[in-house]
Amino acid sequence: MGVVVSLEGERSPSLAPLTTLVADDMRAVNELVVQRMHSPVAMIPQLAGHLVAAGGKRLRPLLTLASARMCGYAGRRQIALAASVEFIHTATLLHDDVVDESDLRRGLASANAVWGNKASVLVGDFLLSRSFELMVEDGSLSVLSILSRASSLIAEGEVMQLITQNDTETGETQYQEVIKSKTAQLFAAACRIGAIIAARPKVEEDALETFGMNLGTAFQLTDDVLDYSAKQMALGKTVGDDFREGKITLPVILAFRRGDEAERTFWRRTLETLEQRPGDLERAVDLMEKHKALADTVERARHYGAIARDGLGIFADGPEKSALVEIIDFCIERTY
Amino acid sequence: MGVVVSLEGERSPSLAPLTTLVADDMRAVNELVVQRMHSPVAMIPQLAGHLVAAGGKRLRPLLTLASARMCGYAGRRQIALAASVEFIHTATLLHDDVVDESDLRRGLASANAVWGNKASVLVGDFLLSRSFELMVEDGSLSVLSILSRASSLIAEGEVMQLITQNDTETGETQYQEVIKSKTAQLFAAACRIGAIIAARPKVEEDALETFGMNLGTAFQLTDDVLDYSAKQMALGKTVGDDFREGKITLPVILAFRRGDEAERTFWRRTLETLEQRPGDLERAVDLMEKHKALADTVERARHYGAIARDGLGIFADGPEKSALVEIIDFCIERTY
Repeated sequence: MGVVVSLEGERSPSLAPLTTLVADDMRAVNELVVQRMHSPVAMIPQLAGHLVAAGGKRLRPLLTLASARMCGYAGRRQIALAASVEFIHTATLLHDDVVDESDLRRGLASANAVWGNKASVLVGDFLLSRSFELMVEDGSLSVLSILSRASSLIAEGEVMQLITQNDTETGETQYQEVIKSKTAQLFAAACRIGAIIAARPKVEEDALETFGMNLGTAFQLTDDVLDYSAKQMALGKTVGDDFREGKITLPVILAFRRGDEAERTFWRRTLETLEQRPGDLERAVDLMEKHKALADTVERARHYGAIARDGLGIFADGPEKSALVEIIDFCIERTY
Repeated sequence: MGVVVSLEGERSPSLAPLTTLVADDMRAVNELVVQRMHSPVAMIPQLAGHLVAAGGKRLRPLLTLASARMCGYAGRRQIALAASVEFIHTATLLHDDVVDESDLRRGLASANAVWGNKASVLVGDFLLSRSFELMVEDGSLSVLSILSRASSLIAEGEVMQLITQNDTETGETQYQEVIKSKTAQLFAAACRIGAIIAARPKVEEDALETFGMNLGTAFQLTDDVLDYSAKQMALGKTVGDDFREGKITLPVILAFRRGDEAERTFWRRTLETLEQRPGDLERAVDLMEKHKALADTVERARHYGAIARDGLGIFADGPEKSALVEIIDFCIERTY
């Protein structure tokens, strides 16, 4: 979670100010998540609990909590809605595990590897339905509309990704559409909800949506870079998942388009036909370094980060706004 | 669809009176289904269209349309809600294809076999989200509550089925819970919606729920019998899917509990360890016949059918009620 030190200018950007600010709310969200993933069918909380215990950053619910607070909301609705957002995200992870046949997620064995495809699909369905139950209990049709739309866009984005997978001809525009749908939409929805429950004017809803959408895009670009990061490799973290699956991400697109014919043959062999040999991942990283594909992907992330920052411009300065701005930098800086 | 002949007492029970009665509405539902499964991501309508083209009986949306009509509802909300119910059902089928690795559904190649697991999961997610979008547009929190609850119960039921799969110790009570959740809940919700949009008193909502729940149970019991039906075999229809997957259905439970130790060894070999040899399915059917397991499963279905019929008792006689009563008989009689 990072450590807050007093020398403002010298510490690395971190999630700490945000998590500290909404710590009480986040505890309530975590309790609700555990409570509402319960089912008399024991396999459901077991499997869902596996993911919850693995403990991601919980960025999306944090965004809902912080946005609501920045909008001056003083009620309790943010708790259930943040849990709802987290359930949608968890359902996506479970279904992603199935479809990508990935063995590891967050360093632990994926639910899929432990319980099988079947259970992962069904528990994902259960969590998605639970998410809607939470929203229905909250009772806002505006929130329901935003999150049901986000949910179908996520599915669309995942199908788009499936189509572009193993296709080295994929262009940057197409890739942008994929990550906008599969990742950024839920960030945008998570933020927008804060303004809705606070009954703020539409201009603030839109501003939070802009912030979330661009932050989500920067976040995904960063994730794509991390999967090829030499520093991550040196730290002993898992890298190369995207490469092994033949996922076409921006670092690949840039390296492919900037490369010569011999290099393109390499990319086609490894990512289209998935014929991969020892040393191929290292060669992929070398080619990316050679063409500055990773550095330029981070540059693209900075661009979206700048738009996200300006999205917050209309809100009054304060600890919430500062913490949200710091998340942008945290997302981008964590690459190196 | 069967043919309506004038000699009331002599024709077999059929869906025809119901489909005739709501033919215009059903056309509107079909148009809406095609319209709302559209996506700029071409694979989505292609895959979803495959299932729609395969053309099931559309029992669930028919139930919503007929229930609304029997309740005297004269508006148009039944169209979108019937489409919503059908989307939930279609999402379930797509996810069922993935998890059961079945190759055939309704005699056509399953979407899974054509497009792969990945696409089936994601398009199922898309349709489930679309279903909620339709409900949100309708704007009734009561309907949203009923269908989001049904949707999470379906997932629970499917997980329960997964747990009982290959377990010949499964008892009838446990099996009843599975089919109540995975099948009957959506029938019940589909019917209840009719009374809700017609703003009928709660006693009528409850009556339609009772009708749907028991009809759905009878329907599933019948389906389970059909999968071992010698007559279906003779007609060249696909049978034995449940057997090949080791699914524990009531015919199996009855035959297993009524059998001797040699027979139980047979059931354990074929359904628990899935060691199946040529002639095993025929032997399974023989054992079921010997112990009247199929006939008694139909008897159980008749019991639920009788409760369903009495559920409709409080409604005034008329063509809608007659058509709904006939569906009960249709569901049960189609076994032989």
